[in-house]
Amino acid sequence: MKIERLAIIGVGLIGGSIGLAVKKRGLAKFVIGVGRTKAAVQSALALGIIDEGFLEFAPAVRQAELAIFCTPVDVIAKQVLEAAGECASGTLLTDAGSTKARIVSAVEEGLKGPIHFVGGHPLAGSEKSGCEHADPDLFVERCTVLTPTPRTYMTSVERMTSFWEALGARVRLMSPEEHDRAVARTSHLPHVVASTLAAVLPEALRDLAASGFRDTTRIASGEPALWSAILVDNRQSVLGALAPFADRLGEFRRALEAGDRLVLERLLAQAKEVRDALGN
Amino acid sequence: MKIERLAIIGVGLIGGSIGLAVKKRGLAKFVIGVGRTKAAVQSALALGIIDEGFLEFAPAVRQAELAIFCTPVDVIAKQVLEAAGECASGTLLTDAGSTKARIVSAVEEGLKGPIHFVGGHPLAGSEKSGCEHADPDLFVERCTVLTPTPRTYMTSVERMTSFWEALGARVRLMSPEEHDRAVARTSHLPHVVASTLAAVLPEALRDLAASGFRDTTRIASGEPALWSAILVDNRQSVLGALAPFADRLGEFRRALEAGDRLVLERLLAQAKEVRDALGN
Repeated sequence: MKIERLAIIGVGLIGGSIGLAVKKRGLAKFVIGVGRTKAAVQSALALGIIDEGFLEFAPAVRQAELAIFCTPVDVIAKQVLEAAGECASGTLLTDAGSTKARIVSAVEEGLKGPIHFVGGHPLAGSEKSGCEHADPDLFVERCTVLTPTPRTYMTSVERMTSFWEALGARVRLMSPEEHDRAVARTSHLPHVVASTLAAVLPEALRDLAASGFRDTTRIASGEPALWSAILVDNRQSVLGALAPFADRLGEFRRALEAGDRLVLERLLAQAKEVRDALGN
Repeated sequence: MKIERLAIIGVGLIGGSIGLAVKKRGLAKFVIGVGRTKAAVQSALALGIIDEGFLEFAPAVRQAELAIFCTPVDVIAKQVLEAAGECASGTLLTDAGSTKARIVSAVEEGLKGPIHFVGGHPLAGSEKSGCEHADPDLFVERCTVLTPTPRTYMTSVERMTSFWEALGARVRLMSPEEHDRAVARTSHLPHVVASTLAAVLPEALRDLAASGFRDTTRIASGEPALWSAILVDNRQSVLGALAPFADRLGEFRRALEAGDRLVLERLLAQAKEVRDALGN
């Protein structure tokens, strides 16, 4: 797979990392970036993430073979549909948004003509934002989910599978709804929990927070505007994920109230088994 | 400060790191270690953590100036009192246990004669255990809490402050009860929460767990036997810490149910401010 012109819309951490990853592996001849501000575009140019930068879609997507939207989840569908009007026939559009059901259905309802779309989500990231933290190996050995529907062209899935695999990712196909339920448990619930833990730390105890607390709450440094959009978008699944969490926390509470060391040890051992299986 | 003979009882991650830290900084002339098994003692000797190893206290503490107990919280008090019977006059005993109130009161009730004791807790560690993961810089820029009581000799506090500061730690004095309430919030509650999150991850979703999930649940890999002892010992304070956590989680749930992005963004922003203040 070799792309003549790749457009990346949104040159933050994810878009920037895609740009660096593509450059490192010689996957695209020319990379065009679209940023929200002049400063963002200039940073992306200076860091060698993109070859040319724009503040608007039209000139960026016009001749692109593939355009990836790495913008906040609450604007992706609108942007994809707007960009589609500017694209040449056969252009493939995709995204890197953390939620899929609403985005994919909005795009499919609005998309007309010979423009192809498949939803995507690289399960990689950081609590940091901005292309200055971009990493060409961010996707290596990480999973990228593609979310085809009955309306998706198989060639789009194949092209995007090749693309992400070329960046080192494992690709998994799920329906948009299945994806949203899954990431509610692996990403959105942990974000809510980490934020809750961080918020209830009294200021006077901050200097007692050691590496365990820091690890457990690290993702609470994520951008509130991005994450509130994600959580609202996927709120039904996040609420669904909260229920088993609250049940399990209740088991811990009852074992603490009873002072039952054996039950506590069993609860901890079950968790350790899961966590150890994930590796570092 | 220069120690002639230092005894480390328990040559796991913490005891091992103390040994390496002391060696690296030339703080003790001779380091004696006590391990639970021959294999543990041999590892500690092979790694240069200790100069001489024993399986029993008596010969280890007999001529030590300072003995640090780095054993599980449910055995520390008993071991300190046993060892005290073997010590020379003026020996200083301390510990590195994660809970303090029960240990300190048990030791103070049982300790007689010219043996001095002050409780301690270096707020550093890892989800890993065993002296093979020991790190000579584990305590650098971390806080060590010492928990003197009205019965503690000021010279013991001064000596232990010098000791931990020589290993790079900041020292903070708290009462044993104040310490236990504090670490319930900074360490024990996060452990319960991380274990809960890890345990409720469905097996089919394990390959979707990216760096955020891994960070948030890392400490769930800690040793269940050690942690169940800690949680039982400090269960009143852990239950006390669970209450504000559950309240705050309830705020998140209500904002999700209402689909209220502004409230979610405010909750996330408050958490980000706390987490950002901690640094990496």
